[in-house]
Amino acid sequence: MPRLLVIPKQVWDDHMGEGSRDFMTTESSFINLLRGFATDPAARGLLDDAAVIDIGDAALIITHDMMTEGVHFRSNANPADVAWKLLATNLSDLAAKGAAPIGVLLGFMLGDDAWDRAFAAGLEKALAHYNVALLGGDTVANRGDKRALGLTALGMATHRPVPSRSGAQIDDILYVTGTLGDALAGFELIDAGFDEVGSLANAFNRPVARVADGHALAPIVTAMMDVSDGLLLDAERLASASGVGIEIDLAYVPLSPLYINYRTDRLESRMQAASWGDDYQLLFTASPETAVPLAATAIGHVVSGGGLTLKHDGNPIKLPPTLGYQHH
Amino acid sequence: MPRLLVIPKQVWDDHMGEGSRDFMTTESSFINLLRGFATDPAARGLLDDAAVIDIGDAALIITHDMMTEGVHFRSNANPADVAWKLLATNLSDLAAKGAAPIGVLLGFMLGDDAWDRAFAAGLEKALAHYNVALLGGDTVANRGDKRALGLTALGMATHRPVPSRSGAQIDDILYVTGTLGDALAGFELIDAGFDEVGSLANAFNRPVARVADGHALAPIVTAMMDVSDGLLLDAERLASASGVGIEIDLAYVPLSPLYINYRTDRLESRMQAASWGDDYQLLFTASPETAVPLAATAIGHVVSGGGLTLKHDGNPIKLPPTLGYQHH
Repeated sequence: MPRLLVIPKQVWDDHMGEGSRDFMTTESSFINLLRGFATDPAARGLLDDAAVIDIGDAALIITHDMMTEGVHFRSNANPADVAWKLLATNLSDLAAKGAAPIGVLLGFMLGDDAWDRAFAAGLEKALAHYNVALLGGDTVANRGDKRALGLTALGMATHRPVPSRSGAQIDDILYVTGTLGDALAGFELIDAGFDEVGSLANAFNRPVARVADGHALAPIVTAMMDVSDGLLLDAERLASASGVGIEIDLAYVPLSPLYINYRTDRLESRMQAASWGDDYQLLFTASPETAVPLAATAIGHVVSGGGLTLKHDGNPIKLPPTLGYQHH
Repeated sequence: MPRLLVIPKQVWDDHMGEGSRDFMTTESSFINLLRGFATDPAARGLLDDAAVIDIGDAALIITHDMMTEGVHFRSNANPADVAWKLLATNLSDLAAKGAAPIGVLLGFMLGDDAWDRAFAAGLEKALAHYNVALLGGDTVANRGDKRALGLTALGMATHRPVPSRSGAQIDDILYVTGTLGDALAGFELIDAGFDEVGSLANAFNRPVARVADGHALAPIVTAMMDVSDGLLLDAERLASASGVGIEIDLAYVPLSPLYINYRTDRLESRMQAASWGDDYQLLFTASPETAVPLAATAIGHVVSGGGLTLKHDGNPIKLPPTLGYQHH
């Protein structure tokens, strides 16, 4: 396992640099246009992980994520990994609502036969792993373009009210499940040509949707979301949706032994683990009086005011220029 | 309005020729792979227009269709038309189930700013026309590829049992709403450079999802689907799903005065109108004793055996080599 491998500058720039910021502006302005008419309460202002639709006594949770070749997965990626990740990223949005998955619809751009077969076989295994049904979808021809794939995931809320990003209260504790940075390290290792790198590459290729954790947490959280775009960016979104401030102490950000071995435990490594996406952990707030029913790390708390502030071992530090991975 | 304009051979080949059949083989084999594990009853064997999910006393209808630049819409198409058609084609699947639309999720590949703005403005108008909510979705970067767009539409069944393709009974009458062929004529006119061609071009660019008709028909049909890929191909699918045969008399296929004026009323014109898609009319069967609550044309009936047989004014005629538009 290489140690102290730094992120190739081009990789970091590709994912965090000026280009992404330019794109982000376009994406943000497009979403703002949609927000102007997505006024149904079920849409939650397009500010949440999923839509929440009340049907009689039940609440249906629905989300749609796309992945495109060259942006979200490499052209030479294992098609079974692509299928896994497409499913897991969508189920992660359901997990953030504490929802039990029902089924998915697939939007698939056909490519070459071997790739498509490997994708279908991988999707079958991933669906079986999560016990989720394939309900339908659509296939379209590919005229030599990079593949674009979409998945819609449908679930049923297990707890009412359904957790949102907007319920965080001042003095709540901010928690995150699992560890952060493993997907970043895995991405770098794969990028550097280490195909067989075990758990870290797996963290990037085959993220786990924390469906059972979301179910267990839904009754006790004041706000919850999944960390898809980086802890700092997503925590700032949670603060903004809740109309509060959030303070995070980077010294408490949970890192795995593999990540520390790969990257060391310097502040810079912690900052990078906290500002890169793809970990799909659950980020949530709960009252200081609330017992948390599973392993999660307290990394900060909710304060008055707005926005995100950072500390390291109690000492204030500056925010990085880019808070997260902004391609999604 | 040009009269007797024949379909340019290249256009017809592009849409009906060998290339499409090759692609269809790949699409069919991929869908067959999916069918192997899409075993939940809600998936209806991936043989229906939409998935039907029972939730308590309600039935939720959900469908996902993609459209790609260069296959389903031209690069120079009006973005507002693309938005309209993306919505209407999905709502047409809901109409075939007699469902009342609830809302949609959009999967959008960003392109240039002006295109994206025009698309968003068009989508807003189309959603308002159908009184459907935008609930969520995802946007992804475009690295210079042709655009791929996806839409998921969610609706609630208005009648139980929910109409399917598989309920046609021997001796039932086969009906179709509206007229066929207008979208084909519109496509040809647009292809020939007639941008301002009124109703026929509109039939291709802005198909109407027959939501109210589907609602009215759901209680009386034995089987129903929308005609998205051509009357003959879709009727054959309905016959196959129902385990029956279907006989259609082309002399009864409803053509609009505009289509007849453009194409004449020859058998060849009728055959083309019946084997090209994009009309989004509703095709349904009902018992001969059933009163049909809206204007629809009886074009054939259900027979024993299997497959599709054609007549013209009572005389048997051969099936064309390709029954419909197979890019979807």
